[in-house]
Amino acid sequence: MHFASDNWAGASAPVAAALADVNHGLVPAYGGDDATRTATEWFAEIFEKEVSVFFVATGTAANALALAAFAKPGGFVFCHEAAHVAVDEAGAPEFFAGGGKLAPLPGPRGKIDAASLEAAIRRHQPPSVHNGRPVAVTITQASEWGTVYTPDEVREIAQVAHRHGLKLHMDGARFANALVALNVSAADLTWKAGVDVLSFGGTKNGCWCAEAVVMFDHRHADDLAYARKRAGQLFSKSRFVAAQFQGYFDHGHWLDNAVHANAMAKRLAGGIAQSKEGRLLFEPEANEVFAIWPKATSKRLRAAGASFYDWPAEGLPAEEMPAADEDLVRLVTSFATSKHDVAAFVKLLGAGDGIGV
Amino acid sequence: MHFASDNWAGASAPVAAALADVNHGLVPAYGGDDATRTATEWFAEIFEKEVSVFFVATGTAANALALAAFAKPGGFVFCHEAAHVAVDEAGAPEFFAGGGKLAPLPGPRGKIDAASLEAAIRRHQPPSVHNGRPVAVTITQASEWGTVYTPDEVREIAQVAHRHGLKLHMDGARFANALVALNVSAADLTWKAGVDVLSFGGTKNGCWCAEAVVMFDHRHADDLAYARKRAGQLFSKSRFVAAQFQGYFDHGHWLDNAVHANAMAKRLAGGIAQSKEGRLLFEPEANEVFAIWPKATSKRLRAAGASFYDWPAEGLPAEEMPAADEDLVRLVTSFATSKHDVAAFVKLLGAGDGIGV
Amino acid sequence: MHFASDNWAGASAPVAAALADVNHGLVPAYGGDDATRTATEWFAEIFEKEVSVFFVATGTAANALALAAFAKPGGFVFCHEAAHVAVDEAGAPEFFAGGGKLAPLPGPRGKIDAASLEAAIRRHQPPSVHNGRPVAVTITQASEWGTVYTPDEVREIAQVAHRHGLKLHMDGARFANALVALNVSAADLTWKAGVDVLSFGGTKNGCWCAEAVVMFDHRHADDLAYARKRAGQLFSKSRFVAAQFQGYFDHGHWLDNAVHANAMAKRLAGGIAQSKEGRLLFEPEANEVFAIWPKATSKRLRAAGASFYDWPAEGLPAEEMPAADEDLVRLVTSFATSKHDVAAFVKLLGAGDGIGV
Amino acid sequence: MHFASDNWAGASAPVAAALADVNHGLVPAYGGDDATRTATEWFAEIFEKEVSVFFVATGTAANALALAAFAKPGGFVFCHEAAHVAVDEAGAPEFFAGGGKLAPLPGPRGKIDAASLEAAIRRHQPPSVHNGRPVAVTITQASEWGTVYTPDEVREIAQVAHRHGLKLHMDGARFANALVALNVSAADLTWKAGVDVLSFGGTKNGCWCAEAVVMFDHRHADDLAYARKRAGQLFSKSRFVAAQFQGYFDHGHWLDNAVHANAMAKRLAGGIAQSKEGRLLFEPEANEVFAIWPKATSKRLRAAGASFYDWPAEGLPAEEMPAADEDLVRLVTSFATSKHDVAAFVKLLGAGDGIGV
Repeated sequence: MHFASDNWAGASAPVAAALADVNHGLVPAYGGDDATRTATEWFAEIFEKEVSVFFVATGTAANALALAAFAKPGGFVFCHEAAHVAVDEAGAPEFFAGGGKLAPLPGPRGKIDAASLEAAIRRHQPPSVHNGRPVAVTITQASEWGTVYTPDEVREIAQVAHRHGLKLHMDGARFANALVALNVSAADLTWKAGVDVLSFGGTKNGCWCAEAVVMFDHRHADDLAYARKRAGQLFSKSRFVAAQFQGYFDHGHWLDNAVHANAMAKRLAGGIAQSKEGRLLFEPEANEVFAIWPKATSKRLRAAGASFYDWPAEGLPAEEMPAADEDLVRLVTSFATSKHDVAAFVKLLGAGDGIGV
Repeated sequence: MHFASDNWAGASAPVAAALADVNHGLVPAYGGDDATRTATEWFAEIFEKEVSVFFVATGTAANALALAAFAKPGGFVFCHEAAHVAVDEAGAPEFFAGGGKLAPLPGPRGKIDAASLEAAIRRHQPPSVHNGRPVAVTITQASEWGTVYTPDEVREIAQVAHRHGLKLHMDGARFANALVALNVSAADLTWKAGVDVLSFGGTKNGCWCAEAVVMFDHRHADDLAYARKRAGQLFSKSRFVAAQFQGYFDHGHWLDNAVHANAMAKRLAGGIAQSKEGRLLFEPEANEVFAIWPKATSKRLRAAGASFYDWPAEGLPAEEMPAADEDLVRLVTSFATSKHDVAAFVKLLGAGDGIGV
Repeated sequence: MHFASDNWAGASAPVAAALADVNHGLVPAYGGDDATRTATEWFAEIFEKEVSVFFVATGTAANALALAAFAKPGGFVFCHEAAHVAVDEAGAPEFFAGGGKLAPLPGPRGKIDAASLEAAIRRHQPPSVHNGRPVAVTITQASEWGTVYTPDEVREIAQVAHRHGLKLHMDGARFANALVALNVSAADLTWKAGVDVLSFGGTKNGCWCAEAVVMFDHRHADDLAYARKRAGQLFSKSRFVAAQFQGYFDHGHWLDNAVHANAMAKRLAGGIAQSKEGRLLFEPEANEVFAIWPKATSKRLRAAGASFYDWPAEGLPAEEMPAADEDLVRLVTSFATSKHDVAAFVKLLGAGDGIGV
Repeated sequence: MHFASDNWAGASAPVAAALADVNHGLVPAYGGDDATRTATEWFAEIFEKEVSVFFVATGTAANALALAAFAKPGGFVFCHEAAHVAVDEAGAPEFFAGGGKLAPLPGPRGKIDAASLEAAIRRHQPPSVHNGRPVAVTITQASEWGTVYTPDEVREIAQVAHRHGLKLHMDGARFANALVALNVSAADLTWKAGVDVLSFGGTKNGCWCAEAVVMFDHRHADDLAYARKRAGQLFSKSRFVAAQFQGYFDHGHWLDNAVHANAMAKRLAGGIAQSKEGRLLFEPEANEVFAIWPKATSKRLRAAGASFYDWPAEGLPAEEMPAADEDLVRLVTSFATSKHDVAAFVKLLGAGDGIGV
């Protein structure tokens, strides 16, 4: 009953198998190997486009390097106020940009929209050296509240950004979950909608350690190659990441994993909705569920072996706020979440025997 | 016949097995798991001391984070002019230190010594805000020329450094190879000799991706935890690195690997010494062999499938310099180097049938 | 009728005279001269304490260097959301800190208070490498809304900061104006109330270019000396800044200037309060006046030669917000503001003949 | 008898007068004033070209900002090993570039040449992410050894740099001294010879504090405006720097000052050459004289009130090295150096009565 995070899971069987398979022979280091080449071709196929792919160690590194590619003196990057880059990366985007800055924007359910972005940009016009200047926008897909941006929403944001000379970055730590939730193509959700660079996450959805910066505009690729090395993010034994991506992509395994995780989230949400103790904050769109229940319930669930995080309620509208004796909690499902675990958890919540959910 | 680098190898069987073994269940992320705890205990046992251990993605990251821990405004770090930090890390130490500086020193066979360090420090005395100030020293063990610092040599360097308020860092990308070459304990070669922080490399000697910063002085540990996260170097699925280290350390496997690699280097060197075409630059001390032979020989060897790197002769004394029609080459052995490969290579060099070496 | 900013003024006569006086002979550069020594002694006298004084070129540099002295990886600094460091320094604090971060807090009239600071700190407890950690607090004296912190308010903020291990910085770009408004000693308003470091501004109040970082805790002084040089902020001809400070301090000239500026602000506010067109946002406490009047009034005043800035109304309570056809404006007075100018301006506003104000 | 540095002088009379003259009235801050506009026009006239001019506080800031404009991840800048940027700026270029790197080159008398630059660049070809990549070259005019680059020498260096995609920066802390030594136009010595950006120094040659970055290529100007502000280098009362430049340029005053300083250096050199105690290292080309004499002589001269710096002999050919009981010293003249002082000094050296020199 571990719903703390999707990164509590290990690697899925196909990913682990691919990793084992690649372990033979001596091959060139630093990405000069066949496995890295093949994995890169997979990316091109999935995105229907030649892309520049840079494996890195973590999602934080991917985000920070991607945003730093657009850094300028006095530049800042718009993001949602709950964005991982803003609250969970210990200042990595600022550090990698040599002193860059994030400009957090509010927005319901973890998403910004084109209109509020436009308004925010206008507040900095005409540009002044004192205030600094916006250089990029970053959105999280799926968002930190588990919601997803439709291709149209992405496109509208991209249009505002590009009209003002800003680049658009997408933090895709849970890209697969968003993709299958929307049932669109990876191309439609990214560069066709105006995304300039994507942090592509594989770790949360079945890999051990497989993250990549995917640049759709090659002009910045040369700089990024140096920036990655300078950041200590260029693996010598690149094949071990490449192989994970191969196992991840082969036979649509990554999409299957995401479909499963999202389905488990829906099942979990259904159970919570039926329970007498808790209530759902809103219907999950990907693999994160937010619920409110009494603090006593949290305590009881944890005592029974369940894990999940309390979540800050900041930014919620007044009518959705938990009461003083309630917790707002986040529950995350993954490829490794079993129906059994969901059922057991839901049963603890008092929603029937958990089997019907 | 791949002698290009020890990072052309994959993972050794025990390391791969440990990695596979750890892949079950859901466990806390970011190092809160049992495997990470256990691996950390291994480090304490090996170094005979409680140490602060920080897994990172690459040796470059380990070096840059370790040195940045001692950064001060206007500070610079002494290193050998051939040091990896100076010539092979794309400016990572400077970047991580927010604009730090390296001060390269010459020295035979890739090593600096206490006397030249003392002299270099004195050139910056009395300190001036214009010139900046030395804050640390870094030595590579085994060095970039495959030589090793004895515990006494380390101690003398440490004493000079500490007397002037400088910290001592050891780049141990090939720490195991140095250790078995010297046949001393890990403690004797590091903190007991005055090393303040060590970049501990596992990748070149049998792991896929297992590098760590090992701090012997805990005062900097708290900052390093934040610095690592900010650098995008904190793995979410920490267990996958931890498991590699467990497989690496268990039953002295890491030492066996290094013993083998060093032995292969000696065997290779013996063959080169016997050959009519090439000559050894000097007897190898760890797992790197430097040789000089005609450019035509390089061409022929590579055509036959051998791989090795041309090496810059800069810094060599005049009498050792390769002639105009000669190459200086570096050959590196690893746990994965086979006697067969060495024999085949040596045979190509015309040193008997290669079997006797 | 220029009320755009106090930095539109030149230098006051005593400051200009001191600058001219110092211009003879050859003297040591970089602060080794007598004038710099003397000016430093002035600081010690004024603050009733040996202090470390670092002349720098601008208030932005003073703030950024002062805050960078407390930087740690993953560290961030609390400030008011309207603080100059946050909105008017193009990211200098972030840049100087090698990727630092500011955490803006709301608060009425440009001030934060101890309780909201305490609450903000608690939101980051227990500390986590993901979220980063607070390292310092900065307050502006007088604030960007022209209000002042009493010594008690400073002390309360300092106590909260220090209890949690945070340092307290004061941005004193308008320190003199605050000092005379409160009628307290420089010591009482700074280190005796818990301020660790002060950006001491002379430029806005009568100098051409005279800013200094004043450290009350000498432990960071050595680093700051190097940091200043590295920032290109160490003047070679230091005496020209030193002389300005001498002219500034001598015979309490700096306090006289501030008294005059504050008085002119009160006079201007009185006129606005009497006018039929505009209304005062609140009574000025130092040398900045905030008023609301019709956009047509702004246009007319500017056409008549007046200068002042429109000011963002963000953060004001709803009942104070300007109407759609109104401007919120800021008017700043200085040592160079004449009664005549105030009278002429007020007359234009229709407040009698302006003479009575 | 102060020959320690040209920055021991104050301001020349015309510069001081211009500074006094500008001190009236209230004018826009941050460079929006007439004086700044006029000074900028002076630059255009002197360089026979519209240029982007950025006043900054120090030569170190000018150099660091200029070089940072060309920074790229993994980038480094070639300079002479004695360059001010490398040895006297406490790491400012590295800091401003967010972790940039300098690659020092040897060269006689403080100058690099096109051939050695070409060779250095080739050592980094083909480019590799490990080694990093050259992005710019900086030369000092006049150099740290008081020598000057002819327009042809500059052009040859620029051609090598540009052929490889590198930018050329000129550190002109003593630009005027070089200009009058060569008797060429400012345009011929800079952009017409291929210089991309110039640090233009006024401080050493008659100003109090007047330094500027002059960009000949406007593409980087926008970024530099933000970078300057972010560096705390944008003066609010810009007119006070502008006025200095006006006084400096008017009636060719700056050239007169430099002619005088250079003449004093020649006179001083002549005296040393005639003396029995000392010998000239080489004929001065601008306003710096290098001499060798017994340590006892240094002691005696200083006791008599003379000031000058011992200079590191590193990099000198063996035959020029001072003996063990000798000092290598640097003597610098300026607009404020009097014939009287030179005569008195030379007399102390035993070169006649000093009058004939």
